[in-house]
Amino acid sequence: MAAVAEPAEEGLIVVGGGIGGLATALAVAGAGWSVRVLERSPDFREIGAGIQLAPNATRLLDRWGLLDRLVDVGVLPSRLVLRSAMSGRELTCLHLDEKFRETYKGPYIVLHRSDLLAALVDACRSRPTITLEVDKTVTEVLEDGDGVEVTCSDGSRRTASALVGADGLWSAIRRRIVDDEPICSGFVSYRGAVPLEAVSEHPSLDDVVAWIGPGLHFVQYPLRRGELYNQVAVFRSDEYARGEEDWGTPEELDRRFASCCPQVVAALPALRRDNRWVMYDREPVASWSSGRITLVGDAAHPMLQYLAQGACQAFEDAACLGAALQGRGADEVAAAFGGYSDARSPQASRVQRRARVWGDIWHVDGVGALLRDELLLQRDPYDYRHIEWLYGPTASCSWRDA
Amino acid sequence: MAAVAEPAEEGLIVVGGGIGGLATALAVAGAGWSVRVLERSPDFREIGAGIQLAPNATRLLDRWGLLDRLVDVGVLPSRLVLRSAMSGRELTCLHLDEKFRETYKGPYIVLHRSDLLAALVDACRSRPTITLEVDKTVTEVLEDGDGVEVTCSDGSRRTASALVGADGLWSAIRRRIVDDEPICSGFVSYRGAVPLEAVSEHPSLDDVVAWIGPGLHFVQYPLRRGELYNQVAVFRSDEYARGEEDWGTPEELDRRFASCCPQVVAALPALRRDNRWVMYDREPVASWSSGRITLVGDAAHPMLQYLAQGACQAFEDAACLGAALQGRGADEVAAAFGGYSDARSPQASRVQRRARVWGDIWHVDGVGALLRDELLLQRDPYDYRHIEWLYGPTASCSWRDA
Repeated sequence: MAAVAEPAEEGLIVVGGGIGGLATALAVAGAGWSVRVLERSPDFREIGAGIQLAPNATRLLDRWGLLDRLVDVGVLPSRLVLRSAMSGRELTCLHLDEKFRETYKGPYIVLHRSDLLAALVDACRSRPTITLEVDKTVTEVLEDGDGVEVTCSDGSRRTASALVGADGLWSAIRRRIVDDEPICSGFVSYRGAVPLEAVSEHPSLDDVVAWIGPGLHFVQYPLRRGELYNQVAVFRSDEYARGEEDWGTPEELDRRFASCCPQVVAALPALRRDNRWVMYDREPVASWSSGRITLVGDAAHPMLQYLAQGACQAFEDAACLGAALQGRGADEVAAAFGGYSDARSPQASRVQRRARVWGDIWHVDGVGALLRDELLLQRDPYDYRHIEWLYGPTASCSWRDA
Repeated sequence: MAAVAEPAEEGLIVVGGGIGGLATALAVAGAGWSVRVLERSPDFREIGAGIQLAPNATRLLDRWGLLDRLVDVGVLPSRLVLRSAMSGRELTCLHLDEKFRETYKGPYIVLHRSDLLAALVDACRSRPTITLEVDKTVTEVLEDGDGVEVTCSDGSRRTASALVGADGLWSAIRRRIVDDEPICSGFVSYRGAVPLEAVSEHPSLDDVVAWIGPGLHFVQYPLRRGELYNQVAVFRSDEYARGEEDWGTPEELDRRFASCCPQVVAALPALRRDNRWVMYDREPVASWSSGRITLVGDAAHPMLQYLAQGACQAFEDAACLGAALQGRGADEVAAAFGGYSDARSPQASRVQRRARVWGDIWHVDGVGALLRDELLLQRDPYDYRHIEWLYGPTASCSWRDA
């Protein structure tokens, strides 16, 4: 590799300073590596909406010393509740109580994405072996047997022993490893946090509530000690199915939700409509590591949001990658990356697949909805069978034994 | 009514000598009325296939003195079993045991339709107040305040105080009362009994087994003391959906069932293909009586076959009509018919509607099938909640108190 004239700097480059990239920096620095995070935006920021963190994530945040701060700025909901968006009826719930926390060794938290990002940024800044750089858009990556060199759009170059792509759904780094494209689900999402006073209708300030219905759902929960209220409306766009250019518009949103139960209809005016997100995922892959380059989070395994595991799975990546690099030198990085990817891929792929099925279950119509409601109504709220695989320990990573 | 010159003969004319018409003759004769059954075929006959009789029917057959004979020529299955037509897995069952028989005051029987019809014919013939006539196709019905007069295609005329249309799905009598048409479900059925030796594959000689799958199902059970084996294959025709003239062909049958589990595929060669039936029903109506004319069975409330209640509901009609006419004279017949129809319509309508839903549940695809299977697998085989409304006593008729 002619371009890498000098010996590569020891350490890791993380491309992307979002939640997954910063968590990776923390975990890898904790394993004794120096890390440089390259963020293309002028500052570290997240969208103005909520995020859910299940115990498989909060266990790790606790290990990284961040949990107390996040609990302070977040909300510990009492329950996850599924309600019919059509009848309004409560179908089932999961109690996020002492029994739940003890079983899964961590709480369930909801918080503002920017509060989570700020905590991660501060934690990275407090570590001398982590360097955060903004305004760095990576345009070229060169790799040889000794290391990697990236070139940014401002002409600057950085070298390291290895590189982690934490650049999200549309990851440019992934293109070096996997030849695929994001898959559009045809669903669009409106989401955002508003001051609690702006919300005239909410089912509960203690619960995360998902109203589910044919081809749509609506999620509500409080944020930031109850000062904010997060609302997410998601629907399958008929405009998309008809091949229209501009689809999933606010007008279609209003049309689609007009037939929901009064509680949902009454909550919609406070929904933020200033931005919308199309829901994508990709097919699972068996490996996302190649030589000295690997991926984390959405770059590795983008998933539909129905299990609320996007950030949680990125944290599992970060922890697993840290464990894989622990005690290993620059010459062992390819093996460590391969081991990390092998360890994480089965579970991450399972989450990708099951998120699709869970979405189908939420959105099923006709007699399928009848069967789903009956099944959920019969469910014991303390039946953990359907969360054990997700929140409980698995064999995928050594950190899980910690 | 000029055509009815002489005073009408006391008694009832039943148009149609099928299972429902003959049962009506028996029940009404039992209430003290004379009955004349007019059958258009040259003899009384039924298709060469099986029929299921649930306790709501066998209780009545017992009262009419027919149950012992039917048990002798039929089979008392041990269980009703639902299995996945795709995986082959048993999903749930209903034990038709002592507990079941005691709860519902009658056994569950399966038998050959011709054996049931023969028992009904013999019982009618043994009653001096019942006259059975064949080769009588009714072409005209006149009604006045005193009675009815029918004209047959051979020019013969019969008079009576009142008339019951037991002329099935395509009922001509119904047209006088209800302005509607049968609704085609787009499903077609192949059915028939074959000697047991002709069947190389069967799941059990003790059970009624329904294999259910996306847009199709397959039913198997033994008949006539186990000498015959009844098989029914039903599927939603894509050829029908495409608007083809000749649809639901044996070729389509083979294509549709090719992806079923090996047990179903292996059983198909023994399926009779010499005749096929399109599945129809009609919308429920609140009343099917008008003056001196009423309807029973499929003429009154044709239903999809998913609850196996066609004959059973006709028996309920017959019993209820008998109870309504008991102790009443010719001048009270219109009131009796109105009372009968009012009493029977809520339950018969419920069966019509729920048969559609039950069919949708059997035939659901995708995630709906996943949910259904989970729900059925969780079901306690002794949970009677979903049969109580059908097999248990209801308030619809006084005979139920008997």
